[in-house]
Amino acid sequence: MSKPSNARGTRDFGPIQMAKRKYVFSIIQKHFESFGFQNIETPAIENLSVLTGKYGDEGDQLLFKILNSGDFTLGLDDTHLKEGYKKLTFKISEKGLRYDLTVPFARFVSMNRNDIAFPFKRYQIQPVWRADKPQKGRYREFYQCDADIVGSNSLINEAELINLFQSVFQSLQLKANLLINSRKILNGIVDALEKPELFSNFAVILDKLDKIGWEKVSTELLSLGFNESDCQKLKYLILFSGTNKEKIDLLKDFFKNTDSGLEGISEVENVLRFIDSNGFDNSNIIFDFTLARGLSYYTGLIYEGKAAEGGFTSSIAGGGRYDNLTASFGLPNMSGVGISFGIERIIDVLEELNRFPEINASASKILLTYFDEAGQEACLEYVHKIRKAGISAEIYPEIGKIKKSFEFADKKQIPFVAVVGESELISNKLNVKDMKKGEQLLLSLSDLIDFLQ
Amino acid sequence: MSKPSNARGTRDFGPIQMAKRKYVFSIIQKHFESFGFQNIETPAIENLSVLTGKYGDEGDQLLFKILNSGDFTLGLDDTHLKEGYKKLTFKISEKGLRYDLTVPFARFVSMNRNDIAFPFKRYQIQPVWRADKPQKGRYREFYQCDADIVGSNSLINEAELINLFQSVFQSLQLKANLLINSRKILNGIVDALEKPELFSNFAVILDKLDKIGWEKVSTELLSLGFNESDCQKLKYLILFSGTNKEKIDLLKDFFKNTDSGLEGISEVENVLRFIDSNGFDNSNIIFDFTLARGLSYYTGLIYEGKAAEGGFTSSIAGGGRYDNLTASFGLPNMSGVGISFGIERIIDVLEELNRFPEINASASKILLTYFDEAGQEACLEYVHKIRKAGISAEIYPEIGKIKKSFEFADKKQIPFVAVVGESELISNKLNVKDMKKGEQLLLSLSDLIDFLQ
Repeated sequence: MSKPSNARGTRDFGPIQMAKRKYVFSIIQKHFESFGFQNIETPAIENLSVLTGKYGDEGDQLLFKILNSGDFTLGLDDTHLKEGYKKLTFKISEKGLRYDLTVPFARFVSMNRNDIAFPFKRYQIQPVWRADKPQKGRYREFYQCDADIVGSNSLINEAELINLFQSVFQSLQLKANLLINSRKILNGIVDALEKPELFSNFAVILDKLDKIGWEKVSTELLSLGFNESDCQKLKYLILFSGTNKEKIDLLKDFFKNTDSGLEGISEVENVLRFIDSNGFDNSNIIFDFTLARGLSYYTGLIYEGKAAEGGFTSSIAGGGRYDNLTASFGLPNMSGVGISFGIERIIDVLEELNRFPEINASASKILLTYFDEAGQEACLEYVHKIRKAGISAEIYPEIGKIKKSFEFADKKQIPFVAVVGESELISNKLNVKDMKKGEQLLLSLSDLIDFLQ
Repeated sequence: MSKPSNARGTRDFGPIQMAKRKYVFSIIQKHFESFGFQNIETPAIENLSVLTGKYGDEGDQLLFKILNSGDFTLGLDDTHLKEGYKKLTFKISEKGLRYDLTVPFARFVSMNRNDIAFPFKRYQIQPVWRADKPQKGRYREFYQCDADIVGSNSLINEAELINLFQSVFQSLQLKANLLINSRKILNGIVDALEKPELFSNFAVILDKLDKIGWEKVSTELLSLGFNESDCQKLKYLILFSGTNKEKIDLLKDFFKNTDSGLEGISEVENVLRFIDSNGFDNSNIIFDFTLARGLSYYTGLIYEGKAAEGGFTSSIAGGGRYDNLTASFGLPNMSGVGISFGIERIIDVLEELNRFPEINASASKILLTYFDEAGQEACLEYVHKIRKAGISAEIYPEIGKIKKSFEFADKKQIPFVAVVGESELISNKLNVKDMKKGEQLLLSLSDLIDFLQ
């Protein structure tokens, strides 16, 4: 018998961690619902035909595949082994674990198109699985937390998702910035430089600006096919610092004759106008036209949230508009826009900043304990009445283990312990100890219930 | 491009189904917490070394196994194919999906034994996966909903789980019976007949009484090794009908000299006494000494809940005491007792009986819509203020689509729609329609907020 362990990259969550996670989940969920998003759930297991080809080659490799049930070797021989594992995979596996919530959502929309009221606003909070190399902060099983609106082109939706971002982080009492940009602005930049064919590689390189800096980015751009003069213009743009308004003016000038770029600028301007009356100080919404976001399915506005305090610099939220996500499931021309909260990262940041409210995961408010059978009988009756009053309560299961029950309450952080002994039975009272203050009170059951409420 | 579909035996849950599921989950969770159970979660993926050998051969076959990442064919050749798929499985798969919540819980307890305050009361509500043949009411991915107490032998725990059963079904307003028995009584019966070696087969056959009736059971018992005289005695016992008290007296007489049986009877008597003061009419707690429950790990009290109304006769809850669940993870002598609510079945029963409260899954209480840009600007401001007052609200994203927005509200069951046009802008009011009653009201924003609250 070997020592049991968790599968690599997976975690258990004990009561205290669960209480913290639920605190974050419940705040996000509350705001999702307050904005009119409806909750759906899709299964963990999807047909591989749904999952593969949606995340690029690397993503396909990171899908967890499920071995077919029964004798999966039927019809297999040496030649299949020699064809290589990639081909063989699809012979012995038809199903996989979902890799994100977006593709299953696109499948759901496509399958239920006739019953859905569009624009469809849905939220989904469920685990996803990726066969990534586990490392600090990166897991193979982790929760995603997405809100999307599909079936409307209006920029009101983008604005609403930004308002949602503001609402969530205000409730979490965490300072966070939201960088916004439009893919059309990135398009406009390569168009203005008359190199539209370099767009997707340009976006990929620009995405690294944060990490590798301008010098290295410019080297990569030169080897991609931009010339020195392009790089001079780009440098001026990219290193420009100013207010949102100043950046917009700079780009309007740069884009004079570039329609795609002007369209992108107008998106940003409109969205910034739409959020004007949202009641938040919006100085944390930063127009950053170097923001590229990796995923290639974005076509319009994109945004990325980052904690503005603590040591974490990586993304805690992100999203944007995509125009053709459901097309691969037979439903073309269904524009959508979404936001994903990086729930695991947010929990890490709140943990680092010690920003969780005082959390008592004990579940029970009071523990009842007793010296003998008569006390036990009384406590059995009391515990039901306390619960009936809406107070969580438990009864220590062993007779006459007073010391042990106090140790138990201490370890489980149960705030009150009531002891019932001979004298308490005679006086019809309970001897209640406040475990934090150390104070003791002699109370009748109804006084105890009032006291705990 | 093929039509997308769900993997066989899995389901999507749309907003209305989710609302129903959450209603049931939240009631059970509320009672779990009121009884002092703490929430934990374990990962979906477990090492196969944790899962295999715990559910019998059949269970091992029903485990979903995950194909190893990367080139799983390395080192494989024809001879491995010929060894058969069962052996090959363990060469190409190291992980699987959890089959229930009990084994992962046992692993968790064993791994965290030094940090846990025993007796440990935990609850867990998560999906499990089984490669079963899908059929009506049986899925490959479904939720389990378990509460267990480990580290205490006291029968108070059994009594508490029965009280939990009563509390949950009272809140769900569903009539349910709970059959209780003790494995020791089943032991006592074979002991009294001096055939202790036939115990486990006896339990398996008895488990079928419900479905196949006494005649067929007696035939199987005879072929198992019981004689005619044994069967006569068993028939008298098994077909006896009476109150709990009458059954207890009958068995006490039958067990005169059989310690195991008397111990079992005493367990049942004590537990029935312990629940006396729980405030429920306990006439639905039925001592049924033909109850066997399939799983072989039970060693003491066992129980099974059944709906007492509607057409479903199968189990909606079940559980019992087990003495050695954590032993296979290196932690012997850790007695536990648990209850599992058959959440999917409960949802089916409530659905059949139409017993769900009126559920509005629309998320939003009001939809704002407008004729022009000025109205849009006003609505953008209103929607934030309505949400700030704690009311779920949404804004229709398109300008001037009044008819479409009413159709949308109707389909999504949003109870109120507010229209802002030119005259409303002048009068600083909103034209609010009650979608159910058809009534229209002209209200200022603050009056509207008061009205919706």
